[in-house]
Amino acid sequence: MNDGYNVIGKSVGRIDGKVKVTGQAKYTGDLRFPGMLVGKILTSPYAHARILSIDTSEAEKLPGVKAVITHKDVPSLKYGISPARWDENIFCIEKVLFVGDKIAAVAAVDEETVYKALKLIKVEYEVLPAVLDPLKAMDEDTPWLHAEYPHNINTEIHQDFGNVEKAFAESFHVRTDRFVGQRAYQSPIEPHSAISMWDGDKLTVYSSTQSPHYFQYYIARQFGLPMGNVRVLKTYIGGGFGGKLEPTGLEFAGAALAKITGRPVRMFYDRHEMFAHNRGRHRQYMELKTGVDKDGKILGVYANFLMDGGAYTSLGVASAYYAGALLTIPYDFANYRFDMYRVYTNLPACGAQRGHGHPQPRFAFESHMDNIAHDLRLDPIELRLRNARKPGTITPNEFKVNSCALEAAVEKARAISNWDEKRNNLPKGRGIGIGLGAFVSGAGYPIYRTNLPHAAAIIKVNEDGSSATLYTGAVDIGQGSDTVLCQMAAEAMGYTFEKMTIVSADTEAAPHDFGAYASRQTLMSGAAVKQAGEDVKKQLLELAAPSLGINVAELDCRDEVIYVKKSPEQQRTFAEVAREFFVKKGPLVGKGSYTPPKLGGKFKGAAVGTSPAYSFAAQVTEVAVDPETGEVNVLEAWDVHDCGKVINPALLHAQVHGAFFMGMGESVWEEVLFDENGKILNANLSDYRVPTALDMPQFHSELVDSYEPNAPWGVKEVGEGATTPTMGSIANAIYHASGVRIKSLPISPEKIWRALKEQREE
Amino acid sequence: MNDGYNVIGKSVGRIDGKVKVTGQAKYTGDLRFPGMLVGKILTSPYAHARILSIDTSEAEKLPGVKAVITHKDVPSLKYGISPARWDENIFCIEKVLFVGDKIAAVAAVDEETVYKALKLIKVEYEVLPAVLDPLKAMDEDTPWLHAEYPHNINTEIHQDFGNVEKAFAESFHVRTDRFVGQRAYQSPIEPHSAISMWDGDKLTVYSSTQSPHYFQYYIARQFGLPMGNVRVLKTYIGGGFGGKLEPTGLEFAGAALAKITGRPVRMFYDRHEMFAHNRGRHRQYMELKTGVDKDGKILGVYANFLMDGGAYTSLGVASAYYAGALLTIPYDFANYRFDMYRVYTNLPACGAQRGHGHPQPRFAFESHMDNIAHDLRLDPIELRLRNARKPGTITPNEFKVNSCALEAAVEKARAISNWDEKRNNLPKGRGIGIGLGAFVSGAGYPIYRTNLPHAAAIIKVNEDGSSATLYTGAVDIGQGSDTVLCQMAAEAMGYTFEKMTIVSADTEAAPHDFGAYASRQTLMSGAAVKQAGEDVKKQLLELAAPSLGINVAELDCRDEVIYVKKSPEQQRTFAEVAREFFVKKGPLVGKGSYTPPKLGGKFKGAAVGTSPAYSFAAQVTEVAVDPETGEVNVLEAWDVHDCGKVINPALLHAQVHGAFFMGMGESVWEEVLFDENGKILNANLSDYRVPTALDMPQFHSELVDSYEPNAPWGVKEVGEGATTPTMGSIANAIYHASGVRIKSLPISPEKIWRALKEQREE
Repeated sequence: MNDGYNVIGKSVGRIDGKVKVTGQAKYTGDLRFPGMLVGKILTSPYAHARILSIDTSEAEKLPGVKAVITHKDVPSLKYGISPARWDENIFCIEKVLFVGDKIAAVAAVDEETVYKALKLIKVEYEVLPAVLDPLKAMDEDTPWLHAEYPHNINTEIHQDFGNVEKAFAESFHVRTDRFVGQRAYQSPIEPHSAISMWDGDKLTVYSSTQSPHYFQYYIARQFGLPMGNVRVLKTYIGGGFGGKLEPTGLEFAGAALAKITGRPVRMFYDRHEMFAHNRGRHRQYMELKTGVDKDGKILGVYANFLMDGGAYTSLGVASAYYAGALLTIPYDFANYRFDMYRVYTNLPACGAQRGHGHPQPRFAFESHMDNIAHDLRLDPIELRLRNARKPGTITPNEFKVNSCALEAAVEKARAISNWDEKRNNLPKGRGIGIGLGAFVSGAGYPIYRTNLPHAAAIIKVNEDGSSATLYTGAVDIGQGSDTVLCQMAAEAMGYTFEKMTIVSADTEAAPHDFGAYASRQTLMSGAAVKQAGEDVKKQLLELAAPSLGINVAELDCRDEVIYVKKSPEQQRTFAEVAREFFVKKGPLVGKGSYTPPKLGGKFKGAAVGTSPAYSFAAQVTEVAVDPETGEVNVLEAWDVHDCGKVINPALLHAQVHGAFFMGMGESVWEEVLFDENGKILNANLSDYRVPTALDMPQFHSELVDSYEPNAPWGVKEVGEGATTPTMGSIANAIYHASGVRIKSLPISPEKIWRALKEQREE
Repeated sequence: MNDGYNVIGKSVGRIDGKVKVTGQAKYTGDLRFPGMLVGKILTSPYAHARILSIDTSEAEKLPGVKAVITHKDVPSLKYGISPARWDENIFCIEKVLFVGDKIAAVAAVDEETVYKALKLIKVEYEVLPAVLDPLKAMDEDTPWLHAEYPHNINTEIHQDFGNVEKAFAESFHVRTDRFVGQRAYQSPIEPHSAISMWDGDKLTVYSSTQSPHYFQYYIARQFGLPMGNVRVLKTYIGGGFGGKLEPTGLEFAGAALAKITGRPVRMFYDRHEMFAHNRGRHRQYMELKTGVDKDGKILGVYANFLMDGGAYTSLGVASAYYAGALLTIPYDFANYRFDMYRVYTNLPACGAQRGHGHPQPRFAFESHMDNIAHDLRLDPIELRLRNARKPGTITPNEFKVNSCALEAAVEKARAISNWDEKRNNLPKGRGIGIGLGAFVSGAGYPIYRTNLPHAAAIIKVNEDGSSATLYTGAVDIGQGSDTVLCQMAAEAMGYTFEKMTIVSADTEAAPHDFGAYASRQTLMSGAAVKQAGEDVKKQLLELAAPSLGINVAELDCRDEVIYVKKSPEQQRTFAEVAREFFVKKGPLVGKGSYTPPKLGGKFKGAAVGTSPAYSFAAQVTEVAVDPETGEVNVLEAWDVHDCGKVINPALLHAQVHGAFFMGMGESVWEEVLFDENGKILNANLSDYRVPTALDMPQFHSELVDSYEPNAPWGVKEVGEGATTPTMGSIANAIYHASGVRIKSLPISPEKIWRALKEQREE
C-alpha cells in the first residue's frame, strides 16, 4: 500500500521488542533500591463490619518490622475518580466495606517478615449485615454502605432523547429482553506494583500505571504536596486493560510507609490481592426494549440498566455512562432513553475494563437484535444493514459521527466468513453469529484537570540529525504506543523510524498526557506528536529555504531529504540542515499539544464522554456446541474493523486478536464468583479461567478503508472497540448452533445444558 | 550577600545528595542486565614486544566462555584524541607498547571464568628493547615505538613571542632552574566501568565517562556507525579528574564482545588495571630561564620542557600545550619562548589530570620565582605582586584576560595567613610558602567536532508550573555540576531551585555538550542553561504582558512571581502563567546553546586552548619539616581564589578543598614507580599513597570579588585552577622550613633528608 506515507502504515518492529524478548526490560517489580523495604496491606476478612479496635503493638515488636500504619498515620482525605464522588480512604476509618478493604500496612525488611507481621495485627470487628445482591441494594430496608449515598445509589443517569414512548406506540414490533453481564477481571499478567521513596518533601514513585500524570495528581492531592514534588515513573508494563488506571493502596500506603521509614518501599499485589483490589468489569442487569417498523428499522430504544458497583466509586461513573451512551453509535435511530443505577454493594469496587462499561450492553443489544431478526424472520446481517449508521450523522444523544464505514465492514465480514453459505447450511451443533461494535477514540472530557490540553509532546533532534528523541506522557502498557507514536513523529518530521528514541511516561521528563485509557493515545497523543514533528520540519525547512533559493512553502521533507517539491533533485539532507540548525540556533526542538474540539451537544451530559471519532467493527464467529454437555468450541472468527488510517498494521491486528481473545474469555468462561460472605471463590488463575493461546481459534482480522477528518492522518482507535462485538457475536453463534438463547454471561456449558434440557422438556 | 540574585550565590544542597548518601545512586558497576556477561581484557606483560602468535583456542573451550576476541575481530582503525595523531588500536596488531597494552578480551558468564580464560590465552612474543627513559627517547640509537613518529617524537611545540634573547640580554639578573614533575595518577574512587549492549545495529553503552557525547562520537567512528546508532549514558560517577575523559578498551572491547555474543557485556578495570590503563599526569622535565630587571620585574621567560607521553598520544597533545601556554597567565611579561617535546616511551600513556599538564610547570615556575626572590633578597610575595597580572591585559601569547583579581587574592592570602608575621618569625623547622595559580574556564577549541556549539540546554516546565526539568549534556562527575546548572536554570527562569529536576549526560535524552573537562561546564554549559532559562522566562512574560496591560519590557520574573518592575504589586504567579501557556500553546520549552567567541590571537596555535576567561589563585601553606627524617607535615593552608561570581559557595569551597588535597598528595607522596622492565611497582592504593581525610591540614578557602564579562553572571572555573598553586606553595614552604630546594616531585622525606645531608656536608 503506497499511500504517499514513508513511515506510517508500515508494520515496523516494536521499539521495545528486543528488550522485552531478551528479558532486559525492567518492570516495576524488577527494580531494587538500596535499603528497600517490602510493604504489604492488611485487608478486611469481612464484607461489612465496624472496626472496633486495631492493635498493631505485637506487629511493631517483630524484629525486621520498620513501620506499621493505619488510618491514623495517613491523611483522611477521601479520593476517587470523580470529585463529586470521592468516597474511598487510604485506610478504612470506621467500617470495612468489602473482603479486601484496606485496614493497615506494614513495611519490613523482607516478605517473610511482612506476612508474619500482618498476622500479628489484631483488629476487632463488629460484623454488620452485608449487601451482596445488587438487585436488593436499593431496597428500603437494606443498610447503606455510605451515609452520603442514600439507598446505596452511587450514580444514577436518566437520559431521554426524542420520544421513546411515541416511537414504541408507532412501532410494528416492540420487543423487550433482559440480560445479565457478569463480574469479570482484567487479569493483566504483571501484578500491580509500586516503589515509593522520598527525598525530603519530594516523592518519587515507580508504578505499573496506565496514567503516571493522573497518579501524580492524586498522590500529590492526598499528601497535600505541590504536583511538582511528586514524580511518577513507569517502567515497562505487563498489561493493564483499565485495571491499572487508578491509584491503588499500593501507591498511597507505599508513600506513607516510605515517608515514615525514610527508606524506599516496594509494594505489590499477589494474584489473589489483585482480584480483591479488583476494579474490573461491573456485573450489569440490562433490560432492553426496542421498537422497529415492519422493515426492521429501529424507531426507539429504551435501556434500563443496573450496575453492581461494589463498595466504592472507582471509575464506575464513567462505566455507567459508557454503558448507555455508546449504544446509540452503531445503529441509527432517533429516540432513545437510558436509565442507569450504579449501586454500592459490599463487594470489591468495579471500574474500567477494556471497553469500559460498554461490552456487556453491546452483548445485550446484539443478542436483542438477533432476537428481533428472528421475530421478523430477517437474516441478522440484513437487519443490521438496514439500521447501520452512516458517516456524517448525529446520534440521538448528539454525538457527531464523521467517518463511519460500518456498512462496508458488515459486508466484508459477511463475505469473508462465507456467511450467506454457512448461515443456512451448517451441520447440527454448529452455528455462526454476528455482532457489531463501536467505541470512542478518546474521551472529550478528561477524567480530571479538565482545563488542560489532553496530550503534549516534545521532539528533540540530536545535533547531527542522526537520531531524535520523542518525549511523551503517553503510556505503552503493552499495546505498542511507543512504537506507533515514534512512527508518527518520524512521518511528521520527514524522518526515519529506526532513528527515533522515546522517553515516555515519566512525569518529570515527559510533558503532560492523560495516559492510556478510553483508547485515546493514537488519536490524541498522536495529534500532539504530529504537531511536534511538523514543528521540527517547519524549523528545518525555514532554515533550508534560503540556501535552496526558494520559499518555505515550496519545500518538503521526506525520508530525511529536504527537497523542492517541483524539482526534487534540488535537495539537502535532513542531517546536514539539522546540524546547521544546531550550530546557528541551538537545540532543534519541536513541540505539540492536543485539545479536543468542543464536541458536546446541547443537553446535560452530552459533552461527557463524547469523542472526536468513533471506530466500528463487525465480527462473525463460528462455534460448535456439544448438545450433550453444553460445551462451546469457538472454531473460527472474522473481524472487520473501521479504525481509520492504520499506523502499524501488525500492532493493530495484534490488538484485534487480543481483544477477541479477551472477549471470548468473557463470553464463555470468565466470572468472578463469591461465597455467601462476599469472599471471592476463584481469585487465582487456575479457578478464574482466562483463555490461553491454545484456546484461540483461527482468527481473521481485516480492515475497511476509512479516514477520520477529526484525527491526525485520519486515525481512530482499535484497542477497546475490538472487544465490543465479540460477546454478542459468540452469543448469537451459540444461539444459532444450539437454538437456546443464553442471556447471562458467561455462556457456560451448565447454562446451555440447562437451557437445552428445558427446551427438550417444554 | 544579597546581590539581587534569588537562587545563584547560595549554598543549596546537592541535588544528588540524598541518593548518594543513602546508597540509592547507581553507578555503572551497580547495574545488572539479564544475561549480562562479564568481560575482561588480556594485557601485555612486556613493555615492548612483537606479537608472534595468539592462540585463543584453549580459552574458547572453557565452559562459560562466550567469546574471545583479538585484533582480528575488531576494526583496525586507529583512534586517539587528535585526528593528526591517531596512534592507538583497539587491540595491538603487531606489537605491544607497554605493560598493560591490550591483546585480547574475553566475555564469560562470571568473573571467575573470565580470569581463568585470560590465563588460557597463549601469546608468543619476541621481546624488544624497551624505551623506558624519556630523556633517551629521542636519542639516535633508540628504537621507535611508532614508525610514523621518528625518534619517538609524539608532539613538539615551539613558540616564540617577543624577543626572549634580547630580554635576557637586557636583564639585571637571569636565572635558570631545572625541575622534574613525576608521573602521577588520578585515582578516582570509582573504577572505570562500561556496560555495552546491542539491539540490531544500535549500541547502548553505560559508561563512567566524563564526556558521553565524545564517547558516542568515537565509538560510532570505530564501529562505522552513524552517531545516532550509539547511545551513551552515564549514571552517577565517582570521580574522574581527567582519567575518564577518553574512551578506553572497556568501551571498545565491550562493544565488540556484546556484538559477538548478542548479550550485554559488563567490563571494568580492577584497581591495578586502572593504573596500567593510566592516562594520568605526565612525567615532565622542565627547564626555566627567566630574566628580571633590578626591581624583579620579569622581562622574559624561556621554558624548555620534555614530557614522557608513554606509549600513545592519549590527551597528551593538549597536556603539552597547556604545560607552556598557561605559564603566561598569572605574571605579566612581554617576551616568552616555549619549547616542548612530548616523547613516546614504553610506559602507560599519559593524559589529562586535574590541571592538564599545567600544575607541574606551575610548581616549577613558583619554585623558580622563589629562587629569584631569594637571589634578589625580595619577599616572595613582593616579587609576585610586582609581576602580578592585571585585568584587561593580553598575554605575550595573545590570550585576552578580562577579569583578574590576582593582586587582591595575593594581598588577602598574605593577610589571612599572617604571612608578614610568620615569614620571619617561625621556629626552626617550620616554613611558610606561597604559590600562584591560574587556569582556563573551558577551552575555546574543542577536543573534537570543531564546528559545533560547545554546549546546549533544554528546559521543560511542567504543565502547572510546579516543576521543571533541565536537559543537559554536561556531566556531574562528583563536582556538583547538576546542582550548579539547576541553580542557574532557576535563576534565569525566575524560578525555584528545589523544583528543578535534571536529566544529564545521556546522548539521546539530553542535547550535545562536550562534557567535563578543561573546567568548562560552569561557564560554557552554564551559558547554554542561562539562555534556555531566559527563553522560558521570555515566553512567560510575553504571555503575561497583555493580561497585565503592559509591555513585555516592563515585566520581570523572580521567585516564581511575574511582576511589573515599576509597580511590583501588579503581579501574576509563574505557575498560573505556565499553566495558561500550556493550555494555549502547549509545552513550555526553553532552549539555549553556547559557542565561545573568537578568542585566538594572530599566530599559529593562539586559538588552541585559549579560553573565554581565566581564574586566578594565591595559596599560602605552612609546613613543618623534620630535620632528622625529612618528613613533611603540612600544617595549615590558605587559598584565595578569583573565580568570578560563585554559584554555589559550598560546592566551590569543596572543589578548592579537593584540589588542595590532590595537590598536596602530588607534592609530597604520590608517584607512579616502575621496575626495570616497565612494570608499575605500586599499582594499588596501599603502595601508591593518596592522601586521606586524616592527612588534610586546617584549610581556609576564601574568595575575592570578581566578575567576568565573558561569562554568564560573571562566573569562572574553580575545579582545576585550585590545584595549580598547591605544589609550588608547598615546595616553597618546605624550602623556607628546611633551607633545601627540592626540584623534583614528590618532595619525599628521602629527597629532603639527602639534601639536608648534602648541605651539612658542604
